[in-house]
Amino acid sequence: MSEWINLDKREAFHKLQEMKTVNLKEVMTGENGADRVKKYSVPMLEGMTYNFAAKNVDDEILKALQELADEAGLTEKYKELYNGAVINTGEKRLVLHQLCRGQLGDDVIADGVNKREFYVAQQNRIAEFADKVHNGEIVNGEGKPFTTVVQIGIGGSDLGPRAIYLALENWARKNNKLKMEARFISNVDPDDAAAVLNGIDPSRSLFVLVSKSGTTLETLTNETFVKEALKKAGLDPAKHMVAVTSETSPLAKNEGYLDAFFMDDYIGGRYSSSSAVGGCVLSLAFTPEVFKEFLDGAAVIDKLSTNADIMKNPAMLDALIGVYERNILGYETTAVLPYSQALSRFPVHLQQLDMESNGKSVNRYGEEVDYVTGPVIFGEPGTNGQHSFYQLLHQGKNIIPMQFIGFRNSQIGMDLDIQGSTSQAKLSANVAAQIVGFACGKEDENPNKRFDGNRPSSIIVADILNPAALGALLAHFENKVMFQGFLWNLNSFDQEGVQLGKVLAKRVLAHDTDGALKEYSDLLNI
Amino acid sequence: MSEWINLDKREAFHKLQEMKTVNLKEVMTGENGADRVKKYSVPMLEGMTYNFAAKNVDDEILKALQELADEAGLTEKYKELYNGAVINTGEKRLVLHQLCRGQLGDDVIADGVNKREFYVAQQNRIAEFADKVHNGEIVNGEGKPFTTVVQIGIGGSDLGPRAIYLALENWARKNNKLKMEARFISNVDPDDAAAVLNGIDPSRSLFVLVSKSGTTLETLTNETFVKEALKKAGLDPAKHMVAVTSETSPLAKNEGYLDAFFMDDYIGGRYSSSSAVGGCVLSLAFTPEVFKEFLDGAAVIDKLSTNADIMKNPAMLDALIGVYERNILGYETTAVLPYSQALSRFPVHLQQLDMESNGKSVNRYGEEVDYVTGPVIFGEPGTNGQHSFYQLLHQGKNIIPMQFIGFRNSQIGMDLDIQGSTSQAKLSANVAAQIVGFACGKEDENPNKRFDGNRPSSIIVADILNPAALGALLAHFENKVMFQGFLWNLNSFDQEGVQLGKVLAKRVLAHDTDGALKEYSDLLNI
Repeated sequence: MSEWINLDKREAFHKLQEMKTVNLKEVMTGENGADRVKKYSVPMLEGMTYNFAAKNVDDEILKALQELADEAGLTEKYKELYNGAVINTGEKRLVLHQLCRGQLGDDVIADGVNKREFYVAQQNRIAEFADKVHNGEIVNGEGKPFTTVVQIGIGGSDLGPRAIYLALENWARKNNKLKMEARFISNVDPDDAAAVLNGIDPSRSLFVLVSKSGTTLETLTNETFVKEALKKAGLDPAKHMVAVTSETSPLAKNEGYLDAFFMDDYIGGRYSSSSAVGGCVLSLAFTPEVFKEFLDGAAVIDKLSTNADIMKNPAMLDALIGVYERNILGYETTAVLPYSQALSRFPVHLQQLDMESNGKSVNRYGEEVDYVTGPVIFGEPGTNGQHSFYQLLHQGKNIIPMQFIGFRNSQIGMDLDIQGSTSQAKLSANVAAQIVGFACGKEDENPNKRFDGNRPSSIIVADILNPAALGALLAHFENKVMFQGFLWNLNSFDQEGVQLGKVLAKRVLAHDTDGALKEYSDLLNI
Repeated sequence: MSEWINLDKREAFHKLQEMKTVNLKEVMTGENGADRVKKYSVPMLEGMTYNFAAKNVDDEILKALQELADEAGLTEKYKELYNGAVINTGEKRLVLHQLCRGQLGDDVIADGVNKREFYVAQQNRIAEFADKVHNGEIVNGEGKPFTTVVQIGIGGSDLGPRAIYLALENWARKNNKLKMEARFISNVDPDDAAAVLNGIDPSRSLFVLVSKSGTTLETLTNETFVKEALKKAGLDPAKHMVAVTSETSPLAKNEGYLDAFFMDDYIGGRYSSSSAVGGCVLSLAFTPEVFKEFLDGAAVIDKLSTNADIMKNPAMLDALIGVYERNILGYETTAVLPYSQALSRFPVHLQQLDMESNGKSVNRYGEEVDYVTGPVIFGEPGTNGQHSFYQLLHQGKNIIPMQFIGFRNSQIGMDLDIQGSTSQAKLSANVAAQIVGFACGKEDENPNKRFDGNRPSSIIVADILNPAALGALLAHFENKVMFQGFLWNLNSFDQEGVQLGKVLAKRVLAHDTDGALKEYSDLLNI
């Protein structure tokens, strides 16, 4: 049984602190660099690899990272998690999102139910519902098919499913899997819902209301907003709404909805894309089969994540390198840079996943930790970012580690040879160029044109962004964040930091304010 | 004449280093907090203010910041800039984007031309063209009106205009100013152009090709992509394209375009939203009058920015506080958090504006500086972010200063009273609550539920997000970044850091690679 102790109590961590760091400019130049690219690569799915040649590690540091992984019992802790231990210590909950994708260990029984069976049952109910919508058994009041699905949710009920939808929309259109277009309403800003409603035909739209508790302020507000719009259009809201919620919520078994699909307390919002939260909207948009392929891709990474050997466990290795960068090299921020326009919102999902999980200052026992924890995550697709914030990444005073994502093929396959190369080749050439440019830099007698190099990055490369590859990407980062939480000795599965704002906002709305809060309320005319 | 010397050579900077910092938890609690909110507020437009009560400053620190502004001659340097000095020392260029919005000082003559007159002439030519498109004088080959405008550009030719379009789209629809829907193609990823083309009717679309040099790889590639698609649809590309470019580029006076509108070397990409780069697409989408209102809003801030008194110059004060946070308090990242879904892409424009301008390590003389410079900028709209990365902002180990933006009214005005308050009131209540929560924190015997507070933020509040307010926002941040560049003694107007990647990408495409670059090329199947 592995201990749960702080990172700075680990021997291997102190060993890493004493070790000489690697300068990428030295090791990535010349044939040595070529050898590193070949050697520092870990398989994910078939045709998909995690390559970390341009990270500040060498064989010695990797050995120490392996020791840290062993000492911290990372895969043992993961085993505890998937066998149903109470890993979410703050809320005293199991952590079971991976059970949506497969059974890694023992049956997990909670609340008298086999949880894997429960999640699969929901998937099957969703599949049946989606099939009926697609084949015209479930139609609108006029007997016409639904053409649009609108997810109403916020945070994890929005960012993950939205990022996944956008990532696969063009792939699905190309492969005749786009059954319904999806839209998303999240913000309590009334302009958000109004703009979405202005852009769709409500009579042909199905709304998926997602709230575990059935009490999320933004989501219920937007639901009322949508229902009023439906009524104004002479439609019966109950014929246009389904709920994704917990079995005990007021939204379950409620005549206001066509149907309800269930989640539970063991899957946190930011980990819920694999559950009914993602499953409902994505099965409706793309077919249940596509959602299944997505889950299967994630399951492959979950399986790999059980491997104690860092060279066979890309998520764990990525986690260890990230902790090395954060706690030894002292880097505060990480940029996620997908070379794929379809992944435009994927960095924002990772931003929630990572920052909400590990942006904490106390360990799982509620004790302040004496080291930095989760980084700031941001990112935009390349090549766009190259014409924007890469200036700072190349020549700024702070070093920002980078996570590139690249694909060998485009999704739509509509491409042209222009000046001797396709757009896809140009895209890929740019990501290869950036990695080497960041690592190796460039001398110049004009200091303004000099690049210091030694800016670390890794890249995940896959053949094409399809459902399986996307599932693998998602699980990679979920498991990376989990392993980092283990290393930092955090509870990565609660989010107490979001509570204070809720309490204060209620006070403002009740006009129960004084001091600065009252003045800001006045300033904003509330 | 103010000297151009490094920040750490300034007496006021050393004074600031010696001064006691302010703990927001102390000063923002109780009636003192209320007083600060009332007092620490600077007018921008009518009904629009910059409030910095929740920043780590007090009267003493403000006094020292004023001394720093005076010592660094910030407004004198701005005066040099708008009177036509060569402020972009690296590229030996004038910096003239503000001339698109008004004449602040002397006439600026360059290349034998009065530049204000030149920019206004382009605005008038664009207005005439847009009016003809809107009133049906300029139509497609079949004599039908154009309904969609598609901007093809990258970096500054994309992010600013796109953010502005999204910010005003719903306002324009509501106010009958939406003449054409706009779309944007930027990424060399072929899926970007393909997806946009799949979503429009090319026969009714006008494409605006934006490239100053007429040689930007991504943009020319996407242009060819679009032209091929037009030809395939049996259309004549020359009847669907206009160019925004420099007078000397191959795109000027070219029969392949309906018309060409001109920019010049004195307006950098990230500052070009006020020029023809933003003017063409936005005048076509919203009418020239709306674009004019936008410029007028910006001009008000430009005028305020000439004021040497920090309490009358919000952009300069914001700049000084940012430098205080970066160089005295040591904060690396800044979050931009608009409470408006319409501003969803505004933080990404600021990301380029700020990080590409000041993400540098050498001063304007090419000497390495010994202090940190521009921060990392990221952000997403609230309330969405509250359900995501705010966890780290509240309880993470690093402090991330925040820039909130709020409005008293929604754009569309479709709102409902739910549980005693409108959605707009809920939105505003949340931003008020967050500012106070971040500043004052909350004690709790459970350390996991404790908020340390002292997390600084400012807020810009306006009545409504309309063209003038948006112009003011844009100019505020442009001028803030400029003043920070003056303080750090940087050239904020070049971007040498983007060059290395271009050179290496060309080598990859020419298969002229070795070492790591060759291996990455192989990995990506280039």
